[in-house]
Amino acid sequence: MTRDAADDIMAATHSALRNCGYAELTMQDIADESNLSKSALHYHFDGKHDLLVSFLEHLLDRFEERIADPEGETPAERLHSLVDTIVTPAEPTSDGFQTALLEIQAQAPHDEAYRERLERFDEAFVSQVRSLVAAGVEEGAFRADVDPDQTASLVATYLKGVRTRHVAAGHSLERSAAVIHRHIDDHVVAGENSVVTAE
Amino acid sequence: MTRDAADDIMAATHSALRNCGYAELTMQDIADESNLSKSALHYHFDGKHDLLVSFLEHLLDRFEERIADPEGETPAERLHSLVDTIVTPAEPTSDGFQTALLEIQAQAPHDEAYRERLERFDEAFVSQVRSLVAAGVEEGAFRADVDPDQTASLVATYLKGVRTRHVAAGHSLERSAAVIHRHIDDHVVAGENSVVTAE
Repeated sequence: MTRDAADDIMAATHSALRNCGYAELTMQDIADESNLSKSALHYHFDGKHDLLVSFLEHLLDRFEERIADPEGETPAERLHSLVDTIVTPAEPTSDGFQTALLEIQAQAPHDEAYRERLERFDEAFVSQVRSLVAAGVEEGAFRADVDPDQTASLVATYLKGVRTRHVAAGHSLERSAAVIHRHIDDHVVAGENSVVTAE
Repeated sequence: MTRDAADDIMAATHSALRNCGYAELTMQDIADESNLSKSALHYHFDGKHDLLVSFLEHLLDRFEERIADPEGETPAERLHSLVDTIVTPAEPTSDGFQTALLEIQAQAPHDEAYRERLERFDEAFVSQVRSLVAAGVEEGAFRADVDPDQTASLVATYLKGVRTRHVAAGHSLERSAAVIHRHIDDHVVAGENSVVTAE
């Protein structure tokens, strides 16, 4: 498969998931969004499941690039922009796509291939937050009593909840983002009070 | 419908969701778990969707009872047990049921009836945490600078993420619980440091 054909299929899968959701998605829906026929898709992939596993790997590559080098000069700025990378959708009309991703996540307990890729998203994000926090503590920008593992796990789990609450209960992404940004300012970033209480 | 028949149907729906998941669930699967025939189920409910909306309302009633009066003498104990109520599954083998619930949550953007019930779960929980935290601040058991809205939103969103991370990436419920318990001890409960820094 050429690079262009692969890019076309991944973009088509993205659109088809956004428009059709996960459960009802067919190879025909994906073909309809691409420049390829359904039989050409079947030539490259064993079926919808095989194609979606490749799509998750494609998303994982892009995700790792997006989180690799958060914008900002200080550790605090970099941690805040990492959070925004996750909370702010890449495109404003991507609610349908986020919903489809939640459907795929709900399949993970029955599906080892999905589970394995989803674990890698989780590990990539947790490990990036942990490094950022450890670096911030090291250089004195974050409170000395901040535990990078605890903070990484809190932030990663919280951000998973942001998506689920948004999809399930319509809770505003902006309000959820504000809460974690404030948590970071109040309890992670070193300030006058925190310098006093730091060990 | 008698109370017993209603209880039977709700228990059967619970088992059928746990065993079959949401997407593939049929009225026959629910009848198979109950003492009623499929046609008796159809007499009481317009179909699977109608039955599941009633099931969500039944869960909501039970959820509101479970969170209404958390165990413990002090505000800290009560907040910790409220968290445990959510994180600790009601039955140890309920992973299949939690996964089915996540599937239902992923349907909410397309389904106003589900959405409305899921919003009520969210509001019930947030409002309970907010009251507990406000009472704790009021009586000096929690730090004076703790904002009940901020804390309630952080805890509610985090706990949504606990479930999603567990289902999607197999992340341990116990480890997730430990992180939020520690957050509460470090940043919500009044201690020596926090008394110094409280306004």
